[in-house]
Amino acid sequence: MSDSKKATVYVRLKDGVLDPQGVTIHKALMQMGYGDFLAVRSGKFFELEIKGDSADIDRKIDEVCAKLLSNPVIENYTVEKPQ
Amino acid sequence: MSDSKKATVYVRLKDGVLDPQGVTIHKALMQMGYGDFLAVRSGKFFELEIKGDSADIDRKIDEVCAKLLSNPVIENYTVEKPQ
Repeated sequence: MSDSKKATVYVRLKDGVLDPQGVTIHKALMQMGYGDFLAVRSGKFFELEIKGDSADIDRKIDEVCAKLLSNPVIENYTVEKPQ
Repeated sequence: MSDSKKATVYVRLKDGVLDPQGVTIHKALMQMGYGDFLAVRSGKFFELEIKGDSADIDRKIDEVCAKLLSNPVIENYTVEKPQ
């Protein structure tokens, strides 16, 4: 476990897909008087702890992103590589 | 609008706070045969679009994080500065 690695996956809605959470947060900011904020987009991320001796881990992370962590119809993902 | 800036706020559960979403995703990965993943922690982020000429914006972002974007009892946040 001592040499486990960590990768982070960021998932965000594709451009053009409505983000109700972001819109709601932006409205709340306006009501609170924070007029400096023009827009808010929300997203999620997942920190994956990975066995240090994993083979072929980049491919596995990609698979997991497409199959489980994101919805490829409406979301994009980016991966911060294992380190 | 041409010189608007963007800041990103990352919100994650504090260490020791149970993350049911992360646990569930980890279980699913195990069931799918991805034994390389030892743990999953989930988090969320917010991309804030900010007026280019905003004064004192670092303080405002901090306020907004503490008041609206995170729950300081169970969550920490980090800010990627406006650029």
